[in-house]
Amino acid sequence: MSYATEKLSEEKVFKDPVHRYVHVRDRVIWDLIGTREFQRLRRIRQLGTTYLTFHGAEHSRLNHSLGVYEIVRRIIDDGFDGRPDWYPENRLLCLCAALLHDLGHGPFSHSFEKVFHLDHEDFTQAIILGETEVNAVLRNVHKDFPKHVAEVIAKTYKNKLVVSLISSQIDADRMDYLLRDAYFTGVSYGNFDMERIMRVMRPREDQVVIKSSGMHAVEDYIMSRYQMYWQVYFHPVTRSAEVILTKILHRAKQLYEENYTFKHDPIHFYSLFEDKLALEDYIKLDEAVIMFYFQAWEEEEDSILSDLCRRFMNRNLFKYVEFNPNKQMMDLMELMGLFKKAGLDPEYYLVVDSSSDLPYDFYRPGEEEERLPIHLLMPNGDIRELSRQSEIVEAISGKRRTDHKLYFPQDILEDQTTKRTIKKKIREILGI
Amino acid sequence: MSYATEKLSEEKVFKDPVHRYVHVRDRVIWDLIGTREFQRLRRIRQLGTTYLTFHGAEHSRLNHSLGVYEIVRRIIDDGFDGRPDWYPENRLLCLCAALLHDLGHGPFSHSFEKVFHLDHEDFTQAIILGETEVNAVLRNVHKDFPKHVAEVIAKTYKNKLVVSLISSQIDADRMDYLLRDAYFTGVSYGNFDMERIMRVMRPREDQVVIKSSGMHAVEDYIMSRYQMYWQVYFHPVTRSAEVILTKILHRAKQLYEENYTFKHDPIHFYSLFEDKLALEDYIKLDEAVIMFYFQAWEEEEDSILSDLCRRFMNRNLFKYVEFNPNKQMMDLMELMGLFKKAGLDPEYYLVVDSSSDLPYDFYRPGEEEERLPIHLLMPNGDIRELSRQSEIVEAISGKRRTDHKLYFPQDILEDQTTKRTIKKKIREILGI
Amino acid sequence: MSYATEKLSEEKVFKDPVHRYVHVRDRVIWDLIGTREFQRLRRIRQLGTTYLTFHGAEHSRLNHSLGVYEIVRRIIDDGFDGRPDWYPENRLLCLCAALLHDLGHGPFSHSFEKVFHLDHEDFTQAIILGETEVNAVLRNVHKDFPKHVAEVIAKTYKNKLVVSLISSQIDADRMDYLLRDAYFTGVSYGNFDMERIMRVMRPREDQVVIKSSGMHAVEDYIMSRYQMYWQVYFHPVTRSAEVILTKILHRAKQLYEENYTFKHDPIHFYSLFEDKLALEDYIKLDEAVIMFYFQAWEEEEDSILSDLCRRFMNRNLFKYVEFNPNKQMMDLMELMGLFKKAGLDPEYYLVVDSSSDLPYDFYRPGEEEERLPIHLLMPNGDIRELSRQSEIVEAISGKRRTDHKLYFPQDILEDQTTKRTIKKKIREILGI
Amino acid sequence: MSYATEKLSEEKVFKDPVHRYVHVRDRVIWDLIGTREFQRLRRIRQLGTTYLTFHGAEHSRLNHSLGVYEIVRRIIDDGFDGRPDWYPENRLLCLCAALLHDLGHGPFSHSFEKVFHLDHEDFTQAIILGETEVNAVLRNVHKDFPKHVAEVIAKTYKNKLVVSLISSQIDADRMDYLLRDAYFTGVSYGNFDMERIMRVMRPREDQVVIKSSGMHAVEDYIMSRYQMYWQVYFHPVTRSAEVILTKILHRAKQLYEENYTFKHDPIHFYSLFEDKLALEDYIKLDEAVIMFYFQAWEEEEDSILSDLCRRFMNRNLFKYVEFNPNKQMMDLMELMGLFKKAGLDPEYYLVVDSSSDLPYDFYRPGEEEERLPIHLLMPNGDIRELSRQSEIVEAISGKRRTDHKLYFPQDILEDQTTKRTIKKKIREILGI
Repeated sequence: MSYATEKLSEEKVFKDPVHRYVHVRDRVIWDLIGTREFQRLRRIRQLGTTYLTFHGAEHSRLNHSLGVYEIVRRIIDDGFDGRPDWYPENRLLCLCAALLHDLGHGPFSHSFEKVFHLDHEDFTQAIILGETEVNAVLRNVHKDFPKHVAEVIAKTYKNKLVVSLISSQIDADRMDYLLRDAYFTGVSYGNFDMERIMRVMRPREDQVVIKSSGMHAVEDYIMSRYQMYWQVYFHPVTRSAEVILTKILHRAKQLYEENYTFKHDPIHFYSLFEDKLALEDYIKLDEAVIMFYFQAWEEEEDSILSDLCRRFMNRNLFKYVEFNPNKQMMDLMELMGLFKKAGLDPEYYLVVDSSSDLPYDFYRPGEEEERLPIHLLMPNGDIRELSRQSEIVEAISGKRRTDHKLYFPQDILEDQTTKRTIKKKIREILGI
Repeated sequence: MSYATEKLSEEKVFKDPVHRYVHVRDRVIWDLIGTREFQRLRRIRQLGTTYLTFHGAEHSRLNHSLGVYEIVRRIIDDGFDGRPDWYPENRLLCLCAALLHDLGHGPFSHSFEKVFHLDHEDFTQAIILGETEVNAVLRNVHKDFPKHVAEVIAKTYKNKLVVSLISSQIDADRMDYLLRDAYFTGVSYGNFDMERIMRVMRPREDQVVIKSSGMHAVEDYIMSRYQMYWQVYFHPVTRSAEVILTKILHRAKQLYEENYTFKHDPIHFYSLFEDKLALEDYIKLDEAVIMFYFQAWEEEEDSILSDLCRRFMNRNLFKYVEFNPNKQMMDLMELMGLFKKAGLDPEYYLVVDSSSDLPYDFYRPGEEEERLPIHLLMPNGDIRELSRQSEIVEAISGKRRTDHKLYFPQDILEDQTTKRTIKKKIREILGI
Repeated sequence: MSYATEKLSEEKVFKDPVHRYVHVRDRVIWDLIGTREFQRLRRIRQLGTTYLTFHGAEHSRLNHSLGVYEIVRRIIDDGFDGRPDWYPENRLLCLCAALLHDLGHGPFSHSFEKVFHLDHEDFTQAIILGETEVNAVLRNVHKDFPKHVAEVIAKTYKNKLVVSLISSQIDADRMDYLLRDAYFTGVSYGNFDMERIMRVMRPREDQVVIKSSGMHAVEDYIMSRYQMYWQVYFHPVTRSAEVILTKILHRAKQLYEENYTFKHDPIHFYSLFEDKLALEDYIKLDEAVIMFYFQAWEEEEDSILSDLCRRFMNRNLFKYVEFNPNKQMMDLMELMGLFKKAGLDPEYYLVVDSSSDLPYDFYRPGEEEERLPIHLLMPNGDIRELSRQSEIVEAISGKRRTDHKLYFPQDILEDQTTKRTIKKKIREILGI
Repeated sequence: MSYATEKLSEEKVFKDPVHRYVHVRDRVIWDLIGTREFQRLRRIRQLGTTYLTFHGAEHSRLNHSLGVYEIVRRIIDDGFDGRPDWYPENRLLCLCAALLHDLGHGPFSHSFEKVFHLDHEDFTQAIILGETEVNAVLRNVHKDFPKHVAEVIAKTYKNKLVVSLISSQIDADRMDYLLRDAYFTGVSYGNFDMERIMRVMRPREDQVVIKSSGMHAVEDYIMSRYQMYWQVYFHPVTRSAEVILTKILHRAKQLYEENYTFKHDPIHFYSLFEDKLALEDYIKLDEAVIMFYFQAWEEEEDSILSDLCRRFMNRNLFKYVEFNPNKQMMDLMELMGLFKKAGLDPEYYLVVDSSSDLPYDFYRPGEEEERLPIHLLMPNGDIRELSRQSEIVEAISGKRRTDHKLYFPQDILEDQTTKRTIKKKIREILGI
């Protein structure tokens, strides 16, 4: 028996609050889970700073990765197996890509990527293709196997059906994170009938399609996603924490560049600050390391860095008001001036944050599409794009919604011991 | 209006997966939640190493502390308020004690306390009574208030009804952790009808009693607790991780005492290793700091320390067999010798771990009792101890169950490159 | 103490799967629940023939009525109490109207009302105002109290805030039935965060309004309602059972009018068939009585009546095809002719059924509105109609969706023993 | 392809609140579900009079029967298939026995069986073996197939593994009803981890065994069963309704035997009253028919019959006190005399009801055993009876718990218009 088809002598199960159990029979999957790069995902939270808003959201990316694997496994083993257009030799490839699709995520990915111009997808590729334990396991299947897994995750793999299982507008990734994030935050919005959707998924040559009898379940899934974005992922308090986190990283980099002497030397950040981050350094950068430095930096002499770190660690976040960039740019300019006068560097203490989401989109020729649209399989065998069949989806299709907020340290602005007149003026403009 | 009775202008709510919402109206509670010592509980996991067995169990002690507060708030506001034997002036005291009861927990408390002879209860007292933000808030209520809160948590407060809400065999602490740990691990065993139990709780002068009509709900609660102990808290894989963690701490301390030169200097551990841990040092010791060091120590030259740290970080845990201390001590002695011959220090690589629990106990005069027994309020007004009324509880009452396991690194013992004969002998004795 | 304010010596609770517990403290409510007219609702299913599609949907209207009462009670006691614009003297009125709002429902209301031109709302009024146990309880509060309760349910009561709690586009009635029907059918579509909605409801002089911070929860509720309509309430199999039920009633009435001699004399139906239904007769008409007759009529000589009854009792329902009235009227005409030739009376065996729903509507001046629109309370105190604020709701607002299906007995059409050629022709037109 | 192995062209699913979906692929199962005898189970409630205590408990036996079928299907298809000791040719037999095991249940079985000395198991046999639609379907598989199905249900079938799936102390029947009754009543006590138990079930030649690693899940299941018995099945209010129901049947039979002239002739009861109930008559006796008569009898001249029927229909039940037969027989005798003096026939108005349950029992040689004990499969392959391994189960094993209550019409005893002195005396003895 080859390594690719080797089964464990006894099935292993992980107790999972969302899927009840995650089942593993394949030796390859078991070995991947045991790698140091995969175990590292335990030290990266799935939802970044969200735990500061929803205290239950402390779940890790390992948690989610196992869930995506289990969904793909069930779609294939319980649904696709034996159907036309499905080639069993793609099974292991799909399972590995599902398990490893988030492997390159770093700590608080969103903020890190913005500040240091990183892309977690590059690191996923690097880990799969580099000198890692993960690569060793995959190479053991076949010398080209790491490349294939990397291509599926990069959406460049030739078999688009395989790609669409992991990355489309109704893929295993989205289904798992909606259910999982709903579970751990405790909000009910993310729930939809995944079991029903899995039952109506059918393999086609170039994509997964959905039997039209399951259209309502898909509508419900899309609405769940919409709600989770605005209720959880873009929650203004979460974004406040993210703003502060981003500014901490900015400040530390700036200080480093200015040859500031840190009390606690940020050796883990050197290569990052110098734009020459090696894979091995990246892998060591987990959230424990970040939190270690933030705690240490609470005691730095630089008052901006220490203030921001204390705010983050002790959840003393910025407050916010709505901000309309079309109407209020003059106000913002004026506020920046006033902040400087009040002794507050506006680069760090007056921050506009924008969130934007497209609940669903059909395919627009010539445009860059992030994820594939959803196609229905009609009773007569025709394929129809979802928004042409569902009035609800049509109504929201392609409509981007954007929200801007202006963040600032309300506690300082209300502190009456210094700069009372300027602060009063600031508060008037902010309307607080 | 005094600070003690001050209400927030608008109620604050936290979304909680277990209780749906945690409600805060009292200014004092809101201020306590905002302290740095309370926020630190976000960086201490509720279940220590359990997340290595049940990947969902990544929830923090802050999470649990808010839950205990909410349960006590609901018992008082929805149940006790207006009843005889209940004095409304105790309300704030109960809420504060509930919120703060776990304040002194350190990282991986169980292991730390064992290795360094610490007691988290001492630190809870120290934080409440010392120079802390928490103390400042409490002192603002009344100069004696910190002392009273500390006494309630220490179970020495004069009003035993107040104490029993927080510490008895059916207190808010236990009710929250059973439900919460069941939720985050995903096991169903911890569920019981808390709403029913809260409805039948009645205040009496010296304790909370349970209306006898709710006896079955209490039986179910006790069985849930029993199941959670053996299915979750004493799970052999969790204990394996704990064994390794304990041995890492032992080894680091030993190396420090032997003046070993660490590549990464363990400055956060100095006072701990020297048995002169200051409160301020303790507060900084969160799980992020521990994980930071463990990752750093993966690269230490000492092979025991680096091996154990790699095992912990990458979840390459020890395996186990059942161990019967009455019959197998000779085997253990022999194994210790063989381990040494195989180049494995038995102090670190051959570990007996024992777990023991008493599902329920009545009061035994003259014995030290950990928690108060449960009393039923009969229809005629009499009070009866639970095990005299419930056959199920009587059957398990006072029966301690103990389990011993022997842990070892199976991967090394199966590695055939060195010491093959000795390892074979070891494996034979272990029966693996 | 007056009867209106009398409390039970001890609170009574009903275990409810949807709201956990239903709490009763008011003597008036307790007495109303004990009346024969209210207890009769145990023998009327909440969802008519739906149990033939979703086998769990066997829950009664009593079930739902208690739920609506509990929601209104919680909105008032936990939310409105003490707020401006809320007058505590309306509390009991609201609770009674909530509990009794469905009192006049008969067996399989939908079908009965259509065939016999009845209106359950008339009977609700009649029971509340007539010589009934319910009326006696209400009169005991105050001589005008029955009239007020009846007016609230009829939406003619002067205080529109009170009316809107029971009848608006986001009232306690709808919230309960969505959650309850989702629970008993087992579909997940009906779930939404009622707790959140209750927390953001505010009383205004003429209606309940929703704080705009809760807008997303309301969007989710509207989508849930939409899904429940098309996934459950308008399920084609349920409508098939309803078609057959309606035709049974038609046939029995026709036979009665033709002086047919029933083997089992339908004495319970006399006054109904003769259009002189007295209240006392109506109250006796529960679903047990209907099922009794349907079973008896399985043995009637009239082959249409006995066939339809056997179909209903044994769930041997009609099959269906989509029907487009704009294109297929000629086909329908032809089918009617062919059915006659095949010996099948098209009045009973070829039935078009139409379902139609408006997911949400704003107020249209001059048009008859069924239920009040939803208004948001903005942070600045303004009131805005929901669809002007929510893009999702705007997208679906006022858009009526209608669905037509054509029902027929496929088993007979496929039976090859008689009329083979005609049946073949019929099947071709139907496309089956 | 033979009828026994014929699959539906497309899998049918039933939405089930407990198991999410019930899946049907086998033509035989689909045809059985469509029979009139199986559909009749829609008109028999699973929990008899329990809906008068827990208003959600309106679910039918059809509901439960589908659930038992689904559990057995999953145990076989997901667990047993391909294992030693499992013969695939038993699959259809097991599925049919699971689906049909409750086929003979009549309306309010418990009460009917007691009053008329019936046994629903006899009727199950009669329906399977008699001239019924069910028999026709089964005979179509094989001429001996009805007999085999009947034997499995009667526990006389030669293959004891097959029998134990349907009838043991941890069979599919019990697992379904605990989960289902918990769901519909809304109590949480019935929950246990069925998925876990199904995963650890293994086929052995003569029984299903449970891998010892699943022992705690089984303990939890046994405790759930214990709780459901005392919290739900033996709920004193449910038993009150049952007492009244029993007495209605007694009274009607007595009146019939005394040649009383009923206003509404009980033709459906004739053969029952005369002890010559034919199968066809029995099948017609569903709960709708019973409720029809009870409503009609509310207007009978016999004051006992009409009073009891009104009580049942309008849920005006008897109240109760605890009764100790060892100490209070003299009181009961005295009460009987006083009831007569007060004009209340004690045969109908003073009723002792006893409930008794054995939570778990091991096999006792020579005694009649109702259900097989549970056996664990140890890691070394040995089989051990559960109570020898589990301390919790040992503690409650073989301990029968019995409860006696005395029921009476409190409203009449408190009515002061007649017999005041005697009633006062009665109330004193009853302690009410």
